[in-house]
Amino acid sequence: MLEEMGKAAKAASYQLSVLSTVQKNQVLMTIADRLEAQSAEILAANELDLADARDNGMSAALTDRLMLNPARLKGIADDVRQVCRLADPVGVVIDGGLLDNGLRIERRRVPLGVVGVIYEARPNVTVDVASLCLKTGNAVILRGGKETYRTNGATVRVIQDALKQHGLPAGAVQAIESPDRELVNQLLKLDRYVDMLIPRGGAGLHKLCREQSTIPVITGGIGVCHIFVDRDIELEAAMKVIINAKKQRPSACNSVETLLVHSAIAQTFLPALSRSMAEEGITLHADARSLPLLQNGPAQVSAVTEQQYRDEWLALDLNVKLVDSLDAGIAHIREYGTQHSDAILTRTMHHADRFVNEVDSSAVYVNASTRFTDGGQFGLGAEVAVSTQKLHARGPMGLEALTTYKWVAFGNDTVRS
Amino acid sequence: MLEEMGKAAKAASYQLSVLSTVQKNQVLMTIADRLEAQSAEILAANELDLADARDNGMSAALTDRLMLNPARLKGIADDVRQVCRLADPVGVVIDGGLLDNGLRIERRRVPLGVVGVIYEARPNVTVDVASLCLKTGNAVILRGGKETYRTNGATVRVIQDALKQHGLPAGAVQAIESPDRELVNQLLKLDRYVDMLIPRGGAGLHKLCREQSTIPVITGGIGVCHIFVDRDIELEAAMKVIINAKKQRPSACNSVETLLVHSAIAQTFLPALSRSMAEEGITLHADARSLPLLQNGPAQVSAVTEQQYRDEWLALDLNVKLVDSLDAGIAHIREYGTQHSDAILTRTMHHADRFVNEVDSSAVYVNASTRFTDGGQFGLGAEVAVSTQKLHARGPMGLEALTTYKWVAFGNDTVRS
Repeated sequence: MLEEMGKAAKAASYQLSVLSTVQKNQVLMTIADRLEAQSAEILAANELDLADARDNGMSAALTDRLMLNPARLKGIADDVRQVCRLADPVGVVIDGGLLDNGLRIERRRVPLGVVGVIYEARPNVTVDVASLCLKTGNAVILRGGKETYRTNGATVRVIQDALKQHGLPAGAVQAIESPDRELVNQLLKLDRYVDMLIPRGGAGLHKLCREQSTIPVITGGIGVCHIFVDRDIELEAAMKVIINAKKQRPSACNSVETLLVHSAIAQTFLPALSRSMAEEGITLHADARSLPLLQNGPAQVSAVTEQQYRDEWLALDLNVKLVDSLDAGIAHIREYGTQHSDAILTRTMHHADRFVNEVDSSAVYVNASTRFTDGGQFGLGAEVAVSTQKLHARGPMGLEALTTYKWVAFGNDTVRS
Repeated sequence: MLEEMGKAAKAASYQLSVLSTVQKNQVLMTIADRLEAQSAEILAANELDLADARDNGMSAALTDRLMLNPARLKGIADDVRQVCRLADPVGVVIDGGLLDNGLRIERRRVPLGVVGVIYEARPNVTVDVASLCLKTGNAVILRGGKETYRTNGATVRVIQDALKQHGLPAGAVQAIESPDRELVNQLLKLDRYVDMLIPRGGAGLHKLCREQSTIPVITGGIGVCHIFVDRDIELEAAMKVIINAKKQRPSACNSVETLLVHSAIAQTFLPALSRSMAEEGITLHADARSLPLLQNGPAQVSAVTEQQYRDEWLALDLNVKLVDSLDAGIAHIREYGTQHSDAILTRTMHHADRFVNEVDSSAVYVNASTRFTDGGQFGLGAEVAVSTQKLHARGPMGLEALTTYKWVAFGNDTVRS
């Protein structure tokens, strides 16, 4: 079955690749309109998924993530309309010129072809990813969470209705409509048809893809992010940034997990930190040197373990470690970081410069919260995923990351000498 | 052992990443000078490899590929000096600006970190790859062919002498100095330290890497290249391009393997083709429709098999197939091509346009030989490998393909609202 889906997707990708921006936007507008007009089909399927979720004892919070209603569907449709407004990267000439050998050459941006996306429960991702792939002329094979496979199936059928209305094949957007996990393994081996695989999920899914996929994979999503607090910071300003980086959305991969504090300011900074964290309800996990200075403060505090430096808290918990220099801070980040987002708070220009150059992360910040690592915040207009690998795309991936380029060369019966 | 090499390479990569272009060029000049000054060490090791090769009954042609002498070493040293002259992509700002959220942001080109390269027998690749990696601030782990492991080891020790002279760690350029194949398998799993893997070899090596590596891999190097001969071509000009594409270097991956000939010109084109190919000593492999028209010509001809459409000849052999339209030609390329290099010979502008847009290959040519797909020919100044995948780099990979970017953001204690 997967083989057939791959073949259909590849065939569709050839048709999509030559559509103009106007044609693609027309399809997207039809999709948005039909998501609203055919909402009954999607909501009925969602009802069945929700009933299963409740029967399986899923928590109210998680069930709410699965749940669609007319208002949420309208929001999803509006997001599709927003994608119409984004610039189309396909067809852009990256560079080119006339070569000494007589060829007129250019690198032209083109769609990747077929993209595979494996993601978790939220059903809005289905439409989100499909619209970004269509905008860039790619076919897509979607594998959503098993908790919402009926919702995803119904949603994709509505999208396929819109494709058909414009004379485009259903193979352009397909969902794996079965909760069978074996199908994921089959998808990972479909390198003959699928050009790129994006896993959007936890560490386990990324590891599975990295180890098992024969398709090039974009991995990311795990963020053990740090803030280095230099000796010359202003207390109040620093605290504001730290609170934002931890608390603005603790479950996000770009929230901070570890503070590296210059030991020279331990005596003033740590008591102030304890007061602020107590007010914000943030629990501290302190290293052996900072623990004594924090133990009498108002904030909850316990000893941090080596393993806790390596894991995401994704909660109102924050590690604290004293370091004696910028070098020691950078060394800690290299050892324990996940190359996602790291920040320095400093007033010393050459410290900022060294941090930016020497910390090997997708996003490095000077005097700013780590929470900005996001396609929307970075002005990309959309976000397909956040990559923490170095090949192809790094950090937030916008539409450009769904393209590649080809070399186009024109000659006059030109031969190589 | 591989773990230790990985760790040393990663540590070295941090030092390399902050070197200026001038510093990197100084190291490269020292490497070039030492390759000449210390040639005795390298040639002695090469003697031992050559003796083994002869004992193992290696052909004279292959043995010649392994062989170094003072003149060849000088050529290799001069290539390193040439790398000094290339522009350094590291540090280039790709784009950036002031965001609405208050951040001043830029995408800055940075080294990948650690590159792993697995390649075959030719010992010049060792220096070639090492110099390109150093120029772009990357550490590299080299795994050359087992036939030249002593030569490669000696060469890398000379490079390490040059690194030490400039206060840089030997971990920057390391060779796996053992013919043990198990070490390749270990290298493929070193994702903790190695950021990109480049296999330079045959289809088997690429398959092994795609299936076994947990490191992002650049695959390529297999070229089943096509020329579509349109109905309106000029005979003599077309023949010149076809001969160049087949004969200028038949063993190259960008040489042509299959001609797709518009059936409307079969009666005139095929007899002329037979005459030209006979003169050039090229054997034809014809489909059922063209075979009768070629059988009475002077060129050697036999019936082509389905499998022969899928394989590289890498020799003076050429498949011929009649197709009734441009669509049929494009369909054949989609089915049997390897997305490497494909050309159309035509005088019809919208055919050229359709071919360029609809053939999904790394390089597409209009009225030119497929033999141009090469870093040097495309003006990149160097070639690390030729990619036929779509992620990261496509076609000939120059220095830029050895870099990634990071997002650098400056704020004023800026937080996300």
